[in-house]
Amino acid sequence: MATASAPPFIVASEAPPRVRKNIYPEPFARVVEGRFKRPLGDVFGLQNFGVNWTRLAPGAATALRHHHSKQDEFVYVLEGEPTLVTDAGELLLAPGTCAGFRAGDGNGHQIVNRSALPVVLLEVGDRTPGDIAVYPDDDLAILPAAPGAPSRDASGPRLGFIHKDGTTYE
Amino acid sequence: MATASAPPFIVASEAPPRVRKNIYPEPFARVVEGRFKRPLGDVFGLQNFGVNWTRLAPGAATALRHHHSKQDEFVYVLEGEPTLVTDAGELLLAPGTCAGFRAGDGNGHQIVNRSALPVVLLEVGDRTPGDIAVYPDDDLAILPAAPGAPSRDASGPRLGFIHKDGTTYE
Repeated sequence: MATASAPPFIVASEAPPRVRKNIYPEPFARVVEGRFKRPLGDVFGLQNFGVNWTRLAPGAATALRHHHSKQDEFVYVLEGEPTLVTDAGELLLAPGTCAGFRAGDGNGHQIVNRSALPVVLLEVGDRTPGDIAVYPDDDLAILPAAPGAPSRDASGPRLGFIHKDGTTYE
Repeated sequence: MATASAPPFIVASEAPPRVRKNIYPEPFARVVEGRFKRPLGDVFGLQNFGVNWTRLAPGAATALRHHHSKQDEFVYVLEGEPTLVTDAGELLLAPGTCAGFRAGDGNGHQIVNRSALPVVLLEVGDRTPGDIAVYPDDDLAILPAAPGAPSRDASGPRLGFIHKDGTTYE
Protein backbone atom coordinates (compact mmCIF):
# COMPACT_ATOMS: atom_id res chain seq x y z
CA MET A 1 0.00 0.00 0.00
CA ALA A 2 0.96 3.61 -0.30
CA THR A 3 3.42 4.79 2.29
CA ALA A 4 5.72 7.74 2.66
CA SER A 5 8.59 5.27 2.85
CA ALA A 6 8.31 4.02 -0.72
CA PRO A 7 11.76 3.99 -2.35
CA PRO A 8 12.42 6.63 -5.01
CA PHE A 9 13.25 3.89 -7.53
CA ILE A 10 14.10 0.18 -7.68
CA VAL A 11 15.84 -2.32 -9.92
CA ALA A 12 12.82 -4.06 -11.45
CA SER A 13 14.38 -7.52 -11.56
CA GLU A 14 15.13 -7.30 -7.83
CA ALA A 15 11.68 -6.20 -6.65
CA PRO A 16 9.97 -8.39 -4.04
CA PRO A 17 8.13 -11.34 -5.58
CA ARG A 18 4.38 -11.76 -5.39
CA VAL A 19 3.49 -13.79 -2.36
CA ARG A 20 0.44 -15.57 -3.75
CA LYS A 21 1.82 -17.63 -6.58
CA ASN A 22 -1.22 -19.09 -8.19
CA ILE A 23 -4.88 -18.37 -8.34
CA TYR A 24 -6.28 -21.06 -10.62
CA PRO A 25 -7.83 -24.30 -9.37
CA GLU A 26 -6.50 -27.58 -10.73
CA PRO A 27 -6.18 -28.65 -13.51
CA PHE A 28 -5.50 -25.09 -14.69
CA ALA A 29 -2.78 -24.22 -12.21
CA ARG A 30 -0.22 -26.15 -14.25
CA VAL A 31 -0.65 -23.71 -17.17
CA VAL A 32 1.07 -21.00 -15.17
CA GLU A 33 3.66 -23.18 -13.46
CA GLY A 34 6.99 -21.50 -14.01
CA ARG A 35 5.41 -18.04 -13.98
CA PHE A 36 7.08 -15.64 -11.54
CA LYS A 37 5.83 -12.11 -10.87
CA ARG A 38 7.32 -9.07 -9.19
CA PRO A 39 4.57 -6.46 -8.60
CA LEU A 40 6.44 -3.23 -9.34
CA GLY A 41 3.60 -0.75 -8.97
CA ASP A 42 2.80 -2.00 -5.48
CA VAL A 43 6.33 -1.10 -4.34
CA PHE A 44 5.40 2.54 -4.93
CA GLY A 45 1.87 2.27 -3.53
CA LEU A 46 0.16 2.67 -6.90
CA GLN A 47 -3.58 2.06 -6.64
CA ASN A 48 -5.05 2.64 -10.07
CA PHE A 49 -3.06 0.13 -12.07
CA GLY A 50 -0.61 -2.68 -11.49
CA VAL A 51 2.71 -3.24 -13.24
CA ASN A 52 4.30 -6.67 -13.04
CA TRP A 53 7.79 -7.76 -13.96
CA THR A 54 6.90 -11.29 -15.06
CA ARG A 55 9.29 -14.09 -15.94
CA LEU A 56 8.03 -17.15 -17.79
CA ALA A 57 10.13 -20.30 -17.68
CA PRO A 58 9.97 -22.46 -20.80
CA GLY A 59 6.44 -23.86 -21.03
CA ALA A 60 4.82 -21.32 -18.71
CA ALA A 61 1.96 -18.97 -19.61
CA THR A 62 0.96 -15.59 -18.23
CA ALA A 63 -2.58 -16.82 -17.64
CA LEU A 64 -5.28 -18.94 -19.13
CA ARG A 65 -6.55 -17.39 -22.33
CA HIS A 66 -9.03 -14.75 -21.20
CA HIS A 67 -10.55 -11.34 -21.87
CA HIS A 68 -11.71 -8.63 -19.48
CA SER A 69 -14.93 -6.65 -19.40
CA LYS A 70 -13.55 -3.45 -17.87
CA GLN A 71 -9.81 -3.74 -17.41
CA ASP A 72 -7.34 -2.83 -20.14
CA GLU A 73 -4.09 -4.77 -20.29
CA PHE A 74 -0.73 -4.07 -21.91
CA VAL A 75 2.42 -6.14 -22.22
CA TYR A 76 5.95 -5.21 -23.30
CA VAL A 77 8.57 -7.86 -24.02
CA LEU A 78 11.87 -7.22 -22.23
CA GLU A 79 13.58 -10.54 -22.93
CA GLY A 80 12.99 -13.69 -24.94
CA GLU A 81 10.51 -14.77 -27.58
CA PRO A 82 7.04 -15.39 -26.18
CA THR A 83 4.07 -16.54 -28.22
CA LEU A 84 0.94 -14.40 -28.23
CA VAL A 85 -2.26 -16.46 -28.49
CA THR A 86 -5.51 -14.75 -29.50
CA ASP A 87 -8.59 -15.53 -31.59
CA ALA A 88 -6.37 -14.73 -34.59
CA GLY A 89 -3.99 -17.59 -33.79
CA GLU A 90 -0.41 -17.59 -32.60
CA LEU A 91 2.26 -14.95 -33.19
CA LEU A 92 5.88 -14.93 -32.09
CA LEU A 93 6.94 -11.78 -30.21
CA ALA A 94 10.46 -10.47 -29.61
CA PRO A 95 12.13 -8.01 -27.23
CA GLY A 96 10.90 -4.46 -27.86
CA THR A 97 7.50 -5.57 -29.11
CA CYS A 98 4.30 -4.85 -27.21
CA ALA A 99 0.63 -5.69 -27.30
CA GLY A 100 -2.49 -4.21 -25.76
CA PHE A 101 -5.78 -5.85 -24.85
CA ARG A 102 -8.69 -3.47 -24.71
CA ALA A 103 -11.42 -4.09 -22.17
CA GLY A 104 -14.56 -5.47 -23.72
CA ASP A 105 -13.08 -6.52 -27.02
CA GLY A 106 -13.99 -10.15 -26.43
CA ASN A 107 -10.72 -11.42 -27.91
CA GLY A 108 -9.18 -13.88 -25.48
CA HIS A 109 -5.43 -13.51 -25.07
CA GLN A 110 -2.60 -15.39 -23.44
CA ILE A 111 1.18 -15.27 -23.68
CA VAL A 112 3.01 -18.58 -23.60
CA ASN A 113 6.71 -19.27 -23.56
CA ARG A 114 7.12 -22.02 -26.15
CA SER A 115 10.85 -21.32 -26.43
CA ALA A 116 13.74 -22.98 -24.59
CA LEU A 117 14.86 -19.74 -22.92
CA PRO A 118 13.28 -17.51 -20.28
CA VAL A 119 10.87 -14.75 -21.23
CA VAL A 120 10.61 -11.51 -19.26
CA LEU A 121 7.63 -9.17 -19.67
CA LEU A 122 6.31 -5.95 -18.24
CA GLU A 123 2.57 -6.35 -17.74
CA VAL A 124 0.22 -3.45 -17.01
CA GLY A 125 -3.42 -3.73 -16.01
CA ASP A 126 -5.78 -1.20 -14.49
CA ARG A 127 -7.95 -1.89 -11.48
CA THR A 128 -11.31 -0.65 -12.64
CA PRO A 129 -13.91 -2.06 -10.24
CA GLY A 130 -16.53 -4.54 -11.38
CA ASP A 131 -14.38 -6.29 -13.94
CA ILE A 132 -15.33 -9.75 -15.18
CA ALA A 133 -12.77 -12.03 -16.79
CA VAL A 134 -14.00 -14.63 -19.28
CA TYR A 135 -12.10 -17.82 -20.18
CA PRO A 136 -13.31 -18.92 -23.60
CA ASP A 137 -11.33 -22.16 -23.76
CA ASP A 138 -11.76 -23.51 -20.23
CA ASP A 139 -14.47 -24.51 -17.76
CA LEU A 140 -13.72 -21.64 -15.46
CA ALA A 141 -15.71 -18.62 -14.36
CA ILE A 142 -15.17 -15.96 -11.74
CA LEU A 143 -17.13 -16.05 -8.52
CA PRO A 144 -18.55 -12.55 -8.04
CA ALA A 145 -16.99 -10.59 -5.20
CA ALA A 146 -19.14 -9.37 -2.37
CA PRO A 147 -20.84 -6.04 -3.11
CA GLY A 148 -18.38 -3.24 -2.55
CA ALA A 149 -15.38 -5.53 -2.19
CA PRO A 150 -12.35 -4.59 -4.22
CA SER A 151 -11.76 -6.93 -7.13
CA ARG A 152 -8.00 -6.96 -6.63
CA ASP A 153 -5.47 -6.39 -3.94
CA ALA A 154 -1.68 -6.30 -3.94
CA SER A 155 -1.47 -10.06 -4.42
CA GLY A 156 -3.89 -10.25 -7.32
CA PRO A 157 -7.60 -10.85 -7.85
CA ARG A 158 -9.51 -11.54 -4.67
CA LEU A 159 -12.16 -13.46 -6.48
CA GLY A 160 -12.71 -17.18 -6.37
CA PHE A 161 -13.20 -19.47 -9.33
CA ILE A 162 -16.19 -21.65 -10.15
CA HIS A 163 -17.15 -24.05 -12.92
CA LYS A 164 -19.19 -22.50 -15.73
CA ASP A 165 -22.24 -24.34 -14.42
CA GLY A 166 -21.85 -22.49 -11.12
CA THR A 167 -20.53 -25.39 -9.07
CA THR A 168 -17.43 -24.88 -6.99
CA TYR A 169 -13.92 -26.19 -7.32
CA GLU A 170 -12.31 -28.04 -4.44
CA MET B 1 -9.56 4.96 -30.30
CA ALA B 2 -10.58 1.37 -29.99
CA THR B 3 -11.16 -0.38 -33.26
CA ALA B 4 -11.45 -3.96 -34.37
CA SER B 5 -8.50 -3.31 -36.67
CA ALA B 6 -5.92 -2.79 -33.93
CA PRO B 7 -2.78 -4.78 -34.72
CA PRO B 8 -2.11 -7.85 -32.55
CA PHE B 9 1.28 -6.42 -31.59
CA ILE B 10 3.77 -3.74 -32.65
CA VAL B 11 7.45 -2.89 -32.38
CA ALA B 12 7.33 -0.19 -29.71
CA SER B 13 10.12 1.93 -31.17
CA GLU B 14 8.26 2.06 -34.51
CA ALA B 15 4.84 3.07 -33.18
CA PRO B 16 3.31 6.26 -34.61
CA PRO B 17 4.56 9.40 -32.85
CA ARG B 18 2.30 11.66 -30.84
CA VAL B 19 0.94 14.38 -33.07
CA ARG B 20 0.76 17.16 -30.49
CA LYS B 21 4.35 17.69 -29.45
CA ASN B 22 4.12 20.15 -26.66
CA ILE B 23 1.53 21.40 -24.25
CA TYR B 24 3.37 23.94 -22.11
CA PRO B 25 3.30 27.68 -22.75
CA GLU B 26 6.60 29.53 -23.07
CA PRO B 27 8.98 29.75 -21.28
CA PHE B 28 8.30 26.18 -20.12
CA ALA B 29 8.09 24.54 -23.52
CA ARG B 30 11.88 24.51 -23.81
CA VAL B 31 12.13 22.13 -20.83
CA VAL B 32 10.66 19.34 -22.92
CA GLU B 33 12.36 20.21 -26.20
CA GLY B 34 13.94 17.00 -27.44
CA ARG B 35 11.19 14.88 -25.88
CA PHE B 36 9.60 12.46 -28.35
CA LYS B 37 6.64 10.23 -27.48
CA ARG B 38 5.06 7.22 -29.13
CA PRO B 39 1.68 6.49 -27.46
CA LEU B 40 1.67 2.69 -27.41
CA GLY B 41 -1.58 2.10 -25.56
CA ASP B 42 -3.53 4.18 -28.04
CA VAL B 43 -2.45 1.86 -30.87
CA PHE B 44 -4.52 -0.85 -29.19
CA GLY B 45 -7.41 1.40 -28.22
CA LEU B 46 -6.70 1.30 -24.49
CA GLN B 47 -8.90 3.74 -22.59
CA ASN B 48 -8.06 3.36 -18.90
CA PHE B 49 -4.36 4.11 -19.02
CA GLY B 50 -1.76 5.36 -21.43
CA VAL B 51 1.65 3.86 -22.16
CA ASN B 52 4.25 6.00 -23.88
CA TRP B 53 7.54 4.99 -25.44
CA THR B 54 9.39 8.22 -24.69
CA ARG B 55 12.81 9.24 -25.96
CA LEU B 56 14.66 12.12 -24.31
CA ALA B 57 17.49 13.75 -26.23
CA PRO B 58 20.34 15.08 -24.06
CA GLY B 59 18.94 17.98 -22.03
CA ALA B 60 15.28 17.08 -22.44
CA ALA B 61 12.85 16.37 -19.60
CA THR B 62 9.68 14.26 -19.46
CA ALA B 63 7.73 17.19 -18.06
CA LEU B 64 8.00 20.08 -15.67
CA ARG B 65 8.32 18.78 -12.12
CA HIS B 66 4.75 18.01 -11.03
CA HIS B 67 2.48 15.78 -8.97
CA HIS B 68 -1.01 14.50 -9.66
CA SER B 69 -4.07 14.45 -7.45
CA LYS B 70 -5.72 11.34 -8.89
CA GLN B 71 -3.48 9.79 -11.52
CA ASP B 72 -0.78 7.29 -10.68
CA GLU B 73 2.33 7.27 -12.85
CA PHE B 74 5.05 4.69 -13.47
CA VAL B 75 8.26 4.82 -15.50
CA TYR B 76 10.66 2.05 -16.57
CA VAL B 77 14.06 2.86 -18.05
CA LEU B 78 14.74 0.98 -21.30
CA GLU B 79 17.90 2.81 -22.37
CA GLY B 80 20.30 5.41 -21.02
CA GLU B 81 20.86 7.08 -17.67
CA PRO B 82 18.15 9.58 -16.81
CA THR B 83 18.07 11.67 -13.67
CA LEU B 84 15.03 11.43 -11.40
CA VAL B 85 14.21 14.72 -9.69
CA THR B 86 11.91 14.73 -6.65
CA ASP B 87 11.63 16.55 -3.31
CA ALA B 88 14.41 14.20 -2.14
CA GLY B 89 16.86 15.57 -4.70
CA GLU B 90 18.38 14.01 -7.78
CA LEU B 91 19.09 10.32 -8.41
CA LEU B 92 20.70 8.70 -11.43
CA LEU B 93 18.68 5.85 -12.95
CA ALA B 94 19.86 3.08 -15.27
CA PRO B 95 18.27 0.59 -17.67
CA GLY B 96 16.10 -1.90 -15.80
CA THR B 97 15.25 0.51 -13.00
CA CYS B 98 11.76 1.86 -12.46
CA ALA B 99 9.93 4.40 -10.35
CA GLY B 100 6.31 5.00 -9.43
CA PHE B 101 4.53 8.20 -8.49
CA ARG B 102 1.42 7.67 -6.43
CA ALA B 103 -1.50 10.03 -6.90
CA GLY B 104 -1.87 12.48 -4.07
CA ASP B 105 1.57 12.02 -2.56
CA GLY B 106 2.45 15.67 -3.16
CA ASN B 107 6.02 14.82 -4.16
CA GLY B 108 6.77 16.57 -7.43
CA HIS B 109 8.70 14.45 -9.93
CA GLN B 110 10.45 14.92 -13.23
CA ILE B 111 12.91 12.88 -15.27
CA VAL B 112 15.66 14.78 -17.03
CA ASN B 113 18.33 13.51 -19.40
CA ARG B 114 21.50 15.17 -18.12
CA SER B 115 23.65 12.64 -20.00
CA ALA B 116 25.22 12.94 -23.44
CA LEU B 117 23.32 9.94 -24.83
CA PRO B 118 19.63 9.34 -25.55
CA VAL B 119 17.30 8.03 -22.86
CA VAL B 120 14.33 5.78 -23.65
CA LEU B 121 11.53 5.22 -21.14
CA LEU B 122 8.24 3.42 -20.88
CA GLU B 123 5.79 5.73 -19.12
CA VAL B 124 2.42 4.59 -17.76
CA GLY B 125 -0.31 6.83 -16.42
CA ASP B 126 -3.96 6.17 -15.75
CA ARG B 127 -6.78 8.39 -16.96
CA THR B 128 -8.83 8.81 -13.81
CA PRO B 129 -11.17 11.75 -14.42
CA GLY B 130 -10.90 14.95 -12.41
CA ASP B 131 -7.15 14.87 -12.00
CA ILE B 132 -5.29 18.03 -11.09
CA ALA B 133 -1.56 18.41 -11.77
CA VAL B 134 0.44 20.75 -9.56
CA TYR B 135 3.77 22.34 -10.57
CA PRO B 136 5.60 23.25 -7.37
CA ASP B 137 8.58 24.98 -9.04
CA ASP B 138 6.86 26.97 -11.78
CA ASP B 139 4.21 29.62 -12.27
CA LEU B 140 1.87 27.24 -13.98
CA ALA B 141 -1.56 25.90 -13.10
CA ILE B 142 -4.12 23.87 -15.00
CA LEU B 143 -7.23 25.49 -16.39
CA PRO B 144 -10.15 23.33 -15.30
CA ALA B 145 -11.84 21.42 -18.09
CA ALA B 146 -15.48 21.96 -18.83
CA PRO B 147 -17.79 19.86 -16.63
CA GLY B 148 -17.96 16.37 -18.02
CA ALA B 149 -15.15 16.88 -20.49
CA PRO B 150 -12.49 14.17 -20.53
CA SER B 151 -9.23 15.34 -19.01
CA ARG B 152 -7.15 13.57 -21.64
CA ASP B 153 -7.46 12.28 -25.14
CA ALA B 154 -5.12 10.32 -27.37
CA SER B 155 -2.83 13.31 -27.82
CA GLY B 156 -2.54 14.16 -24.14
CA PRO B 157 -4.22 16.46 -21.64
CA ARG B 158 -6.97 18.57 -23.11
CA LEU B 159 -6.60 21.22 -20.49
CA GLY B 160 -5.15 24.66 -20.91
CA PHE B 161 -2.54 26.31 -18.71
CA ILE B 162 -2.84 29.49 -16.67
CA HIS B 163 -0.59 31.49 -14.36
CA LYS B 164 -0.99 30.66 -10.67
CA ASP B 165 -2.76 34.00 -10.19
CA GLY B 166 -5.40 32.84 -12.67
CA THR B 167 -4.34 35.01 -15.59
CA THR B 168 -3.90 33.42 -18.96
CA TYR B 169 -0.83 32.73 -21.04
CA GLU B 170 -0.61 34.07 -24.57
